[in-house]
Amino acid sequence: MDAVSDIVSRILDAAAEEFAGQGFAGAKVEAIAKRAGVNKAGLYYHVGNKEKLYEAVMLRLFGQVAGAVEQAAVPGLSPGEALAALAEALAGLFSRLPMLPRIMALEMASGAANMPAAAMMEFRRIFGVTRGILARGQETGLLRPAEPVFVHLTLVGGMIVYSLSEPLRQRFAQVAQAMGMRTDMPVGEMGAFLAGVLTRGLAAEPKEGGA
Amino acid sequence: MDAVSDIVSRILDAAAEEFAGQGFAGAKVEAIAKRAGVNKAGLYYHVGNKEKLYEAVMLRLFGQVAGAVEQAAVPGLSPGEALAALAEALAGLFSRLPMLPRIMALEMASGAANMPAAAMMEFRRIFGVTRGILARGQETGLLRPAEPVFVHLTLVGGMIVYSLSEPLRQRFAQVAQAMGMRTDMPVGEMGAFLAGVLTRGLAAEPKEGGA
Repeated sequence: MDAVSDIVSRILDAAAEEFAGQGFAGAKVEAIAKRAGVNKAGLYYHVGNKEKLYEAVMLRLFGQVAGAVEQAAVPGLSPGEALAALAEALAGLFSRLPMLPRIMALEMASGAANMPAAAMMEFRRIFGVTRGILARGQETGLLRPAEPVFVHLTLVGGMIVYSLSEPLRQRFAQVAQAMGMRTDMPVGEMGAFLAGVLTRGLAAEPKEGGA
Repeated sequence: MDAVSDIVSRILDAAAEEFAGQGFAGAKVEAIAKRAGVNKAGLYYHVGNKEKLYEAVMLRLFGQVAGAVEQAAVPGLSPGEALAALAEALAGLFSRLPMLPRIMALEMASGAANMPAAAMMEFRRIFGVTRGILARGQETGLLRPAEPVFVHLTLVGGMIVYSLSEPLRQRFAQVAQAMGMRTDMPVGEMGAFLAGVLTRGLAAEPKEGGA
């Protein structure tokens, strides 16, 4: 990585942390510069003001999500395998990027007031993967019809809330244990659970008198 | 309702709106008093400071959630019917109380720093309902084993993120439509989708050579 893209990358990492911690409204450009180890003039020169920083962070994050889900949906997988690969890719993102569920939750709770249009366009790729898996599954008679938005938000919603609820689950752990429940599973296990439930739950009904 | 509980109820409604809009850190007691149409002295007298207001709002909200899910899980339902009733009750709460997903998301994104211990105790009732449905389903051989926390957070996570994503779904609606996807379904339809997927996805495998 050359020196400039190294600086930009450091600034965007710092900005992602700050936005995940404070939300867009609460984030301070000065705090981002400090985290990144650059001065404010350098930060403005390399990326820009708070809006530009947010746009760049969101574009990079959703670009990573889109790239990861597109890579997961390799040709030749059965619908069940593809849903499992999609869930695994998303769970991997949530483990590697703990700021992702936090930024998403804050952005959504703010009424998506600051979501950049460019980042929205990555949704086309992200939802396109889920839609493609469902369409192929329905064409081949293996899956029942289902709205892609419901399927995708079941995966993403389950993992966002599972990730974000970690501190609550920790506080609830003792009571849960006394009730015979576990609360400490990593998000990858939640991803596998969601994939299993969706695969079986979306499977087409076996044909009457079929082979 | 007598005059005092009417005032308290107005204060808690106003506080719920303010906390859902601003989060705990950003909420202003003055704004709550103004929304409720009481002066600050009256607000402190009837409920208390910001911490007390938050505690009372969260206790009331999670008490409502616990009451609604307990009412939904009436005896005599099959596991599938019980899961559907649970999903319907939760979807009803999310429709009636739009501040619920917002307060939950902000509280979780803040690391659950302000979640009152008393409100946490309602989790015992809430998760107890899901655990009870799964336990009866497993005892009767109708459901496969599953972690109650995964099942519950699939329902709640899907509905929180589906509700919160409404502004994003609206902005994405035209692109989605061009891709053959709908984004405008009410949260009740998401609840029904989740109930169906969970019911089929958690059903025990048919016994080999069974009747």
